[in-house]
Amino acid sequence: MLLKRWLVGDPIKTAQAADERLTKTLALPVFSSNAISSVAYATEEILLVLTLAGTAAIIWSIPVSLAILFLILVLTISYRQIIHEYPEGGGAYLVARTNLGEVPALVAAAALMIDYVLTVAVSVAAGVAALTSAVPDLFQHRGTMGLVAILFIVVMNLRGMRESGKFFAIPTYFAIGMLGVMVASGTILSLLAPDTDSAARSLSGAGTHLEGLTLFLILRSFAAGCSAVTGMEVISNGIKSFRHPESRNAAATMLWMSAILASLFAGISWMAYHYGILPKVDETVMSQLARLTFGTGLTYYIVQLATMMLLVLAANSAFAGFPQLASILARDGFMPHQMATFGDRLVFSNGIIILGLFAGMLLFLFEGDTHALIPLYAIGVFVSFTLSQAGMVKRWLVKKGLRWRYKLAVNGVGAVTTGIATVIIASTKFVQGAWIVFLLVALLIFMFRGIRSHYKAVSEQVSLSRDSRPPRPRRNIVIIPIGAVNRAVVRAVDYARSHGGEVKAVLIDVDKEETALVEIKWAQWGCGVPLIVLPSPYRSILRALLGYIEEQRQKDPECWITVVIPEILPAQWWQNILHNQRALMLKAALLFKDRVVLTDVPFHLTR
Amino acid sequence: MLLKRWLVGDPIKTAQAADERLTKTLALPVFSSNAISSVAYATEEILLVLTLAGTAAIIWSIPVSLAILFLILVLTISYRQIIHEYPEGGGAYLVARTNLGEVPALVAAAALMIDYVLTVAVSVAAGVAALTSAVPDLFQHRGTMGLVAILFIVVMNLRGMRESGKFFAIPTYFAIGMLGVMVASGTILSLLAPDTDSAARSLSGAGTHLEGLTLFLILRSFAAGCSAVTGMEVISNGIKSFRHPESRNAAATMLWMSAILASLFAGISWMAYHYGILPKVDETVMSQLARLTFGTGLTYYIVQLATMMLLVLAANSAFAGFPQLASILARDGFMPHQMATFGDRLVFSNGIIILGLFAGMLLFLFEGDTHALIPLYAIGVFVSFTLSQAGMVKRWLVKKGLRWRYKLAVNGVGAVTTGIATVIIASTKFVQGAWIVFLLVALLIFMFRGIRSHYKAVSEQVSLSRDSRPPRPRRNIVIIPIGAVNRAVVRAVDYARSHGGEVKAVLIDVDKEETALVEIKWAQWGCGVPLIVLPSPYRSILRALLGYIEEQRQKDPECWITVVIPEILPAQWWQNILHNQRALMLKAALLFKDRVVLTDVPFHLTR
Repeated sequence: MLLKRWLVGDPIKTAQAADERLTKTLALPVFSSNAISSVAYATEEILLVLTLAGTAAIIWSIPVSLAILFLILVLTISYRQIIHEYPEGGGAYLVARTNLGEVPALVAAAALMIDYVLTVAVSVAAGVAALTSAVPDLFQHRGTMGLVAILFIVVMNLRGMRESGKFFAIPTYFAIGMLGVMVASGTILSLLAPDTDSAARSLSGAGTHLEGLTLFLILRSFAAGCSAVTGMEVISNGIKSFRHPESRNAAATMLWMSAILASLFAGISWMAYHYGILPKVDETVMSQLARLTFGTGLTYYIVQLATMMLLVLAANSAFAGFPQLASILARDGFMPHQMATFGDRLVFSNGIIILGLFAGMLLFLFEGDTHALIPLYAIGVFVSFTLSQAGMVKRWLVKKGLRWRYKLAVNGVGAVTTGIATVIIASTKFVQGAWIVFLLVALLIFMFRGIRSHYKAVSEQVSLSRDSRPPRPRRNIVIIPIGAVNRAVVRAVDYARSHGGEVKAVLIDVDKEETALVEIKWAQWGCGVPLIVLPSPYRSILRALLGYIEEQRQKDPECWITVVIPEILPAQWWQNILHNQRALMLKAALLFKDRVVLTDVPFHLTR
Repeated sequence: MLLKRWLVGDPIKTAQAADERLTKTLALPVFSSNAISSVAYATEEILLVLTLAGTAAIIWSIPVSLAILFLILVLTISYRQIIHEYPEGGGAYLVARTNLGEVPALVAAAALMIDYVLTVAVSVAAGVAALTSAVPDLFQHRGTMGLVAILFIVVMNLRGMRESGKFFAIPTYFAIGMLGVMVASGTILSLLAPDTDSAARSLSGAGTHLEGLTLFLILRSFAAGCSAVTGMEVISNGIKSFRHPESRNAAATMLWMSAILASLFAGISWMAYHYGILPKVDETVMSQLARLTFGTGLTYYIVQLATMMLLVLAANSAFAGFPQLASILARDGFMPHQMATFGDRLVFSNGIIILGLFAGMLLFLFEGDTHALIPLYAIGVFVSFTLSQAGMVKRWLVKKGLRWRYKLAVNGVGAVTTGIATVIIASTKFVQGAWIVFLLVALLIFMFRGIRSHYKAVSEQVSLSRDSRPPRPRRNIVIIPIGAVNRAVVRAVDYARSHGGEVKAVLIDVDKEETALVEIKWAQWGCGVPLIVLPSPYRSILRALLGYIEEQRQKDPECWITVVIPEILPAQWWQNILHNQRALMLKAALLFKDRVVLTDVPFHLTR
């Protein structure tokens, strides 16, 4: 308990919920770190695919990057529309559920949840990898370090939205600022000196051997670059985390996030092209750019550190999205109800813990080497993009309303674009493991529906509408099975008698002498409760007792029967093997008897 | 249940206990198979040690065998005296406890129990080994076959003494008979034709190179031959299994057993010496003798089969000794009380099952290859021999009585002889693993005393002598925590009301709207029980409830508090994760509160 208080902090009153919400300044780093961190690798992934067709092919990075910028623009406008239409949050899931039906909604939710788990595992692993390449001695501890990092993020998030927001805001803003300075200065330099003998010129003049540069390769490079837009949906899931007016603040934050994302991505892609930078095995494109812009000095290392921090902080965005989404699913009965209850600090603690657990499990299974997970990445997000856009198209067609044609057009373009991107990503990555995502989505949907149908069955079974009126009062026969007369038994008799009503002690006669002794002691200690001695020719205490209960039941089929068990609770766990074996068997035998209730009256041993 | 009835049979009435006891005819095979089966290997073990000093050394097998015959004689008279003095059974343990004190008694008991477990494992493994050397294809299944054999013996013993006695009597008598025929005809032949060119003559004439034949080697061969007398103590542990008059019948059976054992052992040792048979790697001495006596025909194979059966049946004797010994220890509080309760068929079922479990574990650990266990064997028995004889010496010295000097002499000779044998066995086998037995004995004694001191502490704590008089009646406040109004809750209210007394339903106000709804429904379904709404600014249901209970307690520190929990019991186990999380936490929080009793009122879901 004390540990929990120290880790998580004192509980926050429900009345203070409004104060706990995030201002735009705090929300921007929390929700955007996932999306913005992808600039660290998106350009590199585009170039990696293109160079398969030779260095001259990198000229195609410009149209591919423009296509992705267009995607960012479309998604920004589309999601701002979703934010205004669904101010309660839930993003793709809610849009799909209200417009497309249950299955598409569950597909969107499952795909997003899988993606959030992957985001946490992959981004933490990437951060740890960056650290271990700087300090190789730590490499053998990478698994532990990853788990510690996840644990740290989990605990920070359990401390409440505002507190984790504040804590993570500083490094996030710092990292964004550093990348911004690099991109700005690099771009200005490239524009000021357009005619220096840049590598790009020399490359594009070196020859036009475009052999092998097929349309499929260009599409693959587009699919790879699409990682830049992952995380753009997080805000739409977590609108409830914003201060009032939620939708307006969320939409404004969305705009800021997209602007930062677009400018960083555009700048990096342009610089990489302009300076003719090629992906290397031992150095990232970001590192090459930083070295080129600032030289290999202190600033270079700071930029590297900032990039690493941003990658790790991407995990934090997932913690802003997953628990909110899970709570909405829980409210609809697709997840256990516990996912929808606020913890001590007004966050969905169970969702945070579950996300941490699953990400930790992934990290543990892959021993901190999550390269195999990267192909699984981004598919989930794009499936949810497509479904949410398609849902909005349907909505405008049905609902119409103010400027609906314009809105329809935006979401229509969004649906088509992200749909195409989804198909490209899925088909290019399918054999590398994307099929696992589809399998997992199917399994999750099976689970969601299983849980919902169970909750439905329960609510039907416990519903009072099936009873016409409250039950009439019944008798209650209290039976205390005893084997000896000791303090534990007297305590149980004292308890049973305090209820009032018919109390009977029952002794099974296995040994004549023993029975006679108990009867004598009972006269003194029985508190006036009658002692019934049952014969047991076969020595089975359980059978004799069950027979007696059945007999009572037959006399009055309507009555309640309470079996009060004097239970000795040992001071040490191993001593349990020496006690209560009969009590256990009795409990097992009576558990499924209707209207038979068991009550343990514990007698605590102190040694 | 049905399976149990089919395997074990219908329960037997306590009144029929006398009928279940064994006649001498049935007791002899049950109790003697362990002792008699050792003739199958005792002579061979003597020869094996002696041949280390050259073939001429086997002449020493005659004096060694005579020494062992003398040991048989001493033990027979000694144990008959024990049987008459301790008709309740318990053998060495009881003799040592009443005459020497607790520690020697526990040493004797622990040593015997270890030996019984070893007997079962080793004899079953030997039987399986004999079978697999006949049918090599079965070799890979030897582990499973051993476990099945143990399971079979366990089930047969659970069926009751008389039934298992009858079942195992036929093969035991048959095996004893076959060996008897072989020994008788072989011995007669050897006496009729004393001057044929027997191998023994040629050997003893071949040379007298007794180099290396030290006293130590002769003692080792004696120690090895002592395996012949193991199992002679079983009857003294299980006197209660005999028909009335128990002691007289047991003593008579003891005499018969010893006579059979002595004559078979003497005959086999004589024949081996007379025919000059030497131990071979690929053929046992018994097999060589059978071949020599009957030729390699059908009779030879029948004798081999009989030997094998006798070895397996030795395990059955351990099942006659162990549960009886365990029950006597349990009655003295050194083992869990359950070991002293009769099962359905008037046998100590728990002891039978425990013995089977431990023997099975040994077999499993050694993968059916129990050669490593043989050095551990026999030490336990000899420790118990020595302690029981020493105890009897003490007894005669103190008690005196009729012909006490003669009895003292017998037990004195017994104590000295078995004491020397124990020292020889322990010292010659110590490094080969006998130390493990001493370690286990120490561990068992630690366990025995731990259990006893726990039982003592319990009986002191629950003893009524500490209370001067029965408690005065107290109030009982019944609290039903509810979260909604449904059939499960109404059922719990119906139950609580049936007791009479002060019943209150308690609702924790987490959500204003929800609370208002519950209050409206309560007016209709609450059965007149007052509903108390507790505020919970921090949303913690547990904390609010615990606070309320504490408050009630402060108002009346003497009262009982009953917390009635409406519990939904799902139809499928996995559904438990969706229910009762709060009930579990509540139980954990209330378990150690004094005079707070929890009562689950289950509501069974059907789907």
